[in-house]
Amino acid sequence: MSTPVNRQVVLNAHPVGAPVETDFALVESPLPVPGGGELLIRTIYLSLDPYMRGRMNPGPSYAKGVEVGEVMTAQTVGQVVASNHDGFAEGDFVLSGNGWQEYAVSDGQGVRPLDPSVAPISTAVGVLGMPGMTAYVGLLDVGELKAGDQVVVSAASGAVGAVVGQIAKIKGCRVVGIAGAQKKCDYVTGELGLDACVSHYSDTLADDLRAACPDGIDLYFENVGGKVFDAVVPLLNDFARMPVCGRIANYNMTEPPAGPNEVPRLMGLVLVHRVMIRGFIVFDHVARQPDFIRDVGGWIRSGELTYREDVVEGIEHAVGAFRGLLRGENFGKLLVRVSDDPTR
Amino acid sequence: MSTPVNRQVVLNAHPVGAPVETDFALVESPLPVPGGGELLIRTIYLSLDPYMRGRMNPGPSYAKGVEVGEVMTAQTVGQVVASNHDGFAEGDFVLSGNGWQEYAVSDGQGVRPLDPSVAPISTAVGVLGMPGMTAYVGLLDVGELKAGDQVVVSAASGAVGAVVGQIAKIKGCRVVGIAGAQKKCDYVTGELGLDACVSHYSDTLADDLRAACPDGIDLYFENVGGKVFDAVVPLLNDFARMPVCGRIANYNMTEPPAGPNEVPRLMGLVLVHRVMIRGFIVFDHVARQPDFIRDVGGWIRSGELTYREDVVEGIEHAVGAFRGLLRGENFGKLLVRVSDDPTR
Repeated sequence: MSTPVNRQVVLNAHPVGAPVETDFALVESPLPVPGGGELLIRTIYLSLDPYMRGRMNPGPSYAKGVEVGEVMTAQTVGQVVASNHDGFAEGDFVLSGNGWQEYAVSDGQGVRPLDPSVAPISTAVGVLGMPGMTAYVGLLDVGELKAGDQVVVSAASGAVGAVVGQIAKIKGCRVVGIAGAQKKCDYVTGELGLDACVSHYSDTLADDLRAACPDGIDLYFENVGGKVFDAVVPLLNDFARMPVCGRIANYNMTEPPAGPNEVPRLMGLVLVHRVMIRGFIVFDHVARQPDFIRDVGGWIRSGELTYREDVVEGIEHAVGAFRGLLRGENFGKLLVRVSDDPTR
Repeated sequence: MSTPVNRQVVLNAHPVGAPVETDFALVESPLPVPGGGELLIRTIYLSLDPYMRGRMNPGPSYAKGVEVGEVMTAQTVGQVVASNHDGFAEGDFVLSGNGWQEYAVSDGQGVRPLDPSVAPISTAVGVLGMPGMTAYVGLLDVGELKAGDQVVVSAASGAVGAVVGQIAKIKGCRVVGIAGAQKKCDYVTGELGLDACVSHYSDTLADDLRAACPDGIDLYFENVGGKVFDAVVPLLNDFARMPVCGRIANYNMTEPPAGPNEVPRLMGLVLVHRVMIRGFIVFDHVARQPDFIRDVGGWIRSGELTYREDVVEGIEHAVGAFRGLLRGENFGKLLVRVSDDPTR
């Protein structure tokens, strides 16, 4: 079984746009030997995930990238073939970060044992691993999913999307998937049990999605960016939520979109920096009024908080004052004194 | 004191771009007479607020607009001059929605009594009213403010911004304001006590803001849109939050920005529909892993949740498989089987 060498895929060049074969090299190196406290792990399953495209770029992102000449990083499911580590024995199945290679030596840090009697070991990098957990926390924690939500998930047959759609159904939502090929759409509405699926290959994607979402969208699980994002945005309902875990359509962009007004640039920052943007209208928050009056009233009385009013006299000057407000000409809260204030 | 007529400002035309004087008309109507259960309120203070620009547009927004010929809507502070209502007596000071006119009759619905001994009555439409509460809920509830946050607030001397900046200081944050005229910036760093203020009139706004925020921005209170928004975005830190309550720079736009890729269009929808967009990375949520394994593992065992794997054989095919992943060619979770799986 074991080969005398360790085959590895190393980054040969930082891809420009879509990666090509020559951006990588398959090299052979000697089988590594575990030292004291170390273990040797044979890779069984290597997980390929879209986020890896970001790791191939030079420059900073939310995780360190791969340098030219280095083995590509990846989560892997493997088996311990030799161990000098008290916590692991030969034959143990483990989740580790071997990367794109057949063998790796580890000091045991971050290596997690897997019990094949609980679930197929491959699921540790899939439905019971990072992709599944992305779906779970993205929907329930970040997206604040509620029963009855109208949910749309992109890449609906993919590793993350398939779990998103099914959890949303389990939680009592109406769920529309977006996928590409017909066989994927059939899988989404068939085996996964979603209510509808729209193909992003359609020339009428925006209209198709609108027809599939007659009650709009309360939660969009954003996986892809691009034209799918554009089709979703006009359908967002009041209080819609959009957890953003990826933008695969933008991963091969060779340069950032030109202007600061470009949505893909903003959404790229939202993802990488885990930014939260939330529109709000004060009238939705009336329950907080007693707290507000207590706190701000108290700060005014204690002198910690001050205010300034810009008072214009006479209703005949209201229009001019309002026009000035839009130009930023007022200085402090703008009021029109329409008639006498007997308290002053 | 009282005039025999009621002067009113009515909408004469829906403004196109910046409102002009002829979009409004000052008209006189007979003093209204309260019927049974009604009260007559004399307007003392009329609040002018940027959101009113939206009310002047035809078509739907989050609140009903003003029709041509109708009195402009507004919150007002007034005094009851006649009452056939058990809950209000002549002489009472009240907060109501008289609009842009000297008198209004009300059935008492939504009319709130004001006690001039607690605070100046004008503050009911300012620091202790809607603008102050916008600052309070926007910072604390929507923006999830934490002590130590690096905070930036636009329109920092305005009715909302001045309260935002001061609450953030009270809560132990470093706070940078953005304002226009020098006297406003002086007020922001002087009387309001903010740590710095940058002028949006500066030709080097982006650089000025970067210099004023050496540790980036954790919370941006978005009041204005436009070039201020553009200067803020590149400075956002990991886990930054952006409560969005207005975009005054965009209110006079005569048409929506052309393409779906335009940030002002997206942010307009975020505001009007109170949308939440939140980037996330699963690694930030490790504390939820036991819950995830329990729930998703359980759903798999119960048959409620299924999964599909797309297994490619041999590490020499990893690159090709990854390239296909970016083109959406895989069908299910993509794995490379690098060596035998003895559990299957």
